[in-house]
Amino acid sequence: MRLSRYFLPVLKENPAEAQIVSHRYMLRAGMIKQQAAGIYSWLPLGYRVLKRIEQIVHEEQVRAGHIPLLMPTLQPADLWRESGRYDDYGQEMLRIKDRQEREMLYGPTNEEMITDIFRAHVNSYKDLPLTLYHIQWKFRDEMRPRFGVMRGREFLMKDGYNFDIDRDAALHAYNRHMVSYLRTYERMGLTAIPMRADSGPIGGDDTHEFLVLASTGESEVFFDSAVTELKLGNREVDYDNRAEVAAVCKEFTTLYARTDETHDAALFDAIPEERRKVARGIEVGQIFYFGTKYSASMGALVTNDKGEKVPVEMGSHGIGVSRLLGAIIEASHDDKGIIWPEGVTPFPVGIVNLKQGDGAADAACEGLYKALAARGLEALYDDRDERAGAKFATMDLIGLPWRITVGPRGLANGVVELTSRRTGESEEMSPEAAVARIAEIYAGV
Amino acid sequence: MRLSRYFLPVLKENPAEAQIVSHRYMLRAGMIKQQAAGIYSWLPLGYRVLKRIEQIVHEEQVRAGHIPLLMPTLQPADLWRESGRYDDYGQEMLRIKDRQEREMLYGPTNEEMITDIFRAHVNSYKDLPLTLYHIQWKFRDEMRPRFGVMRGREFLMKDGYNFDIDRDAALHAYNRHMVSYLRTYERMGLTAIPMRADSGPIGGDDTHEFLVLASTGESEVFFDSAVTELKLGNREVDYDNRAEVAAVCKEFTTLYARTDETHDAALFDAIPEERRKVARGIEVGQIFYFGTKYSASMGALVTNDKGEKVPVEMGSHGIGVSRLLGAIIEASHDDKGIIWPEGVTPFPVGIVNLKQGDGAADAACEGLYKALAARGLEALYDDRDERAGAKFATMDLIGLPWRITVGPRGLANGVVELTSRRTGESEEMSPEAAVARIAEIYAGV
Repeated sequence: MRLSRYFLPVLKENPAEAQIVSHRYMLRAGMIKQQAAGIYSWLPLGYRVLKRIEQIVHEEQVRAGHIPLLMPTLQPADLWRESGRYDDYGQEMLRIKDRQEREMLYGPTNEEMITDIFRAHVNSYKDLPLTLYHIQWKFRDEMRPRFGVMRGREFLMKDGYNFDIDRDAALHAYNRHMVSYLRTYERMGLTAIPMRADSGPIGGDDTHEFLVLASTGESEVFFDSAVTELKLGNREVDYDNRAEVAAVCKEFTTLYARTDETHDAALFDAIPEERRKVARGIEVGQIFYFGTKYSASMGALVTNDKGEKVPVEMGSHGIGVSRLLGAIIEASHDDKGIIWPEGVTPFPVGIVNLKQGDGAADAACEGLYKALAARGLEALYDDRDERAGAKFATMDLIGLPWRITVGPRGLANGVVELTSRRTGESEEMSPEAAVARIAEIYAGV
Repeated sequence: MRLSRYFLPVLKENPAEAQIVSHRYMLRAGMIKQQAAGIYSWLPLGYRVLKRIEQIVHEEQVRAGHIPLLMPTLQPADLWRESGRYDDYGQEMLRIKDRQEREMLYGPTNEEMITDIFRAHVNSYKDLPLTLYHIQWKFRDEMRPRFGVMRGREFLMKDGYNFDIDRDAALHAYNRHMVSYLRTYERMGLTAIPMRADSGPIGGDDTHEFLVLASTGESEVFFDSAVTELKLGNREVDYDNRAEVAAVCKEFTTLYARTDETHDAALFDAIPEERRKVARGIEVGQIFYFGTKYSASMGALVTNDKGEKVPVEMGSHGIGVSRLLGAIIEASHDDKGIIWPEGVTPFPVGIVNLKQGDGAADAACEGLYKALAARGLEALYDDRDERAGAKFATMDLIGLPWRITVGPRGLANGVVELTSRRTGESEEMSPEAAVARIAEIYAGV
């Protein structure tokens, strides 16, 4: 993308309404625009990151054997009366009447609707296991929407639902979600720690939240510092192998890590003192096993292998897709701007032309731009007639992890400069070598 | 995808509520489930086609130089009061009050919001031309939602908006949209004819609708039959070249083609009689040039090259993404089911194992499945323990354009059977040759 043809409305001043760094940088980098309290437009740069995050979530769910579909944003109230949640949910549920005075709502979550889909079509244990998920806009009418997309009212969420014949199979689904979530967050450059949590209005027996450590987090968390060193890495996990999946979960949940809701001071004090940590965390996902809570009340029954009708075992599992942009920025920025991890960056690399209009510099930039494109890497090329300082400030603010700087002086020696946004370190090399290096960096992403 | 692990709830019976073939087949093929009047869940197979259509729309918009973003589904009423449409729009607008009694609405279209984004960030002709678009769920509270996704209430639409400094530039944007739409529909296997239309509630001077001929279409259309033979094909169009883009538009709009709203009997009668056609059409898109209608009322001004503040010239351009599934099925089916064009099929090919459990047949199917996957082609492999007739009926109903049939008898001679859903013709060949043929077919899609 050539910046002269793009729509990247960066702001020079810090917006007064933004209280936390992610909100401030998302506004300043031209990623979002508020349209009403807690309701945002995703401007082109923000939309690119949102799509990238959505794509990673999809890929890891499909890898785990889960099946995508899409439920609508609006739901009939009657479905929620069946589970008893229509009255329970309170003012956070946005209730709507259509022109025929039918009662509707903007879905804050989808347990009822997915159970309705399931009971309409599945009758036998032979069609299990089954896990369906979607990534769709939700609405929660927060009393005090704030912190930009971190606590918005209209937000994008992945919510998935497993249907299993018995508790063991459902717990395997729970574990499968835990592993797929760990991989999802790692691909986004995040350390998200699964912590035993409280089940809240979804209800249920087992639940873990995934928390990203950040000083602006809404939850107080208590953990053994060794837990932050665990990595899934590139290991292959066979999602059909219950023992293997369970072993990974055990590895990631044995060390103490809890939110204030489930904190146990006695257990915490048993950790060696130098590893005892109290910090704040941002919740970026949660998994639940709740058994037959919805299937029993809504009549989602299946025939088991003895020919008996039993309510199907379920769980639900969510990732806050739009909120993740905020969480990633909270975890990865400096005083100049955002520092995107390679997995979610809106563009893999920026090209800064130090002297727009100089024949050699223009030609070298065009050559780099096309060579990168030929390798499937869309650079953001700052081809504006601006001074170098302004171009660098924009690149630092929007946080592309790599920058190639091109100027007449370097070109005279056959080199351009490759700079890491994270370390600030620069290296001179030929344009061809820069392209090869960028391609190598992104080959594993 | 292995069918034994998929969620494909096909129906044997024709659903009573479905009046037209696309609605009937989408329900029977397990593509959608109605959740309320005019509100649907997209089951896994339907979701795959929806994503495929969305992807083609994105690719062709980006190719034309248009920039994606994403606006929210809910909008503040005040924005619509600025343009005067809040009161004009009538009961099709779903009006909502949040917990603070603030007036909101579920967006039926986005002229106001995109103008708001534009005026907040763009001040100069130097930042033009600019075309922004999004693909987002909309709501229109139709009095009589019907025909499945063809006239739903919650529907997915691409809407794009151009911002230009003068009428000529805006007409170029209009033309650019026309060409990009022609290519979009062709890639979906559709013949969509641009017809001069009436501007309706969007307002404006120039507008064309794109209509797909089908007996169930809502509009009566009048056209010169030669218009259906025009094809854009693979020709390269330079979207920056005004003359070249205008010439393509002229080619596609010179022959007579109008809806009943703009029909001119005198002009129609001048067509040679054998080419004079009256038929019905489904509207799958519309483009508008409306000048300063919104920019003037909402104060979206830019400085021109003389330093004067002028309202920006605009147009808006829509494609009915969810509706397209219905339109494609109306245009491409037979009495056994859907016939997907290669461009939008949920899976490129189906594999039917005639004797599940037979060692040679199972191994051959697995081999085909993996060889196709290695070429980036995800087959739908019917690995259920069902009789051949049921497997064929399912494949015919869901309409994958190609089917590979594998059975012990053929394998004894080293062959499988490749069948075209459209022609019904079959050919025997080695499994390797079948994979190569499928890869060749999809190489250009």
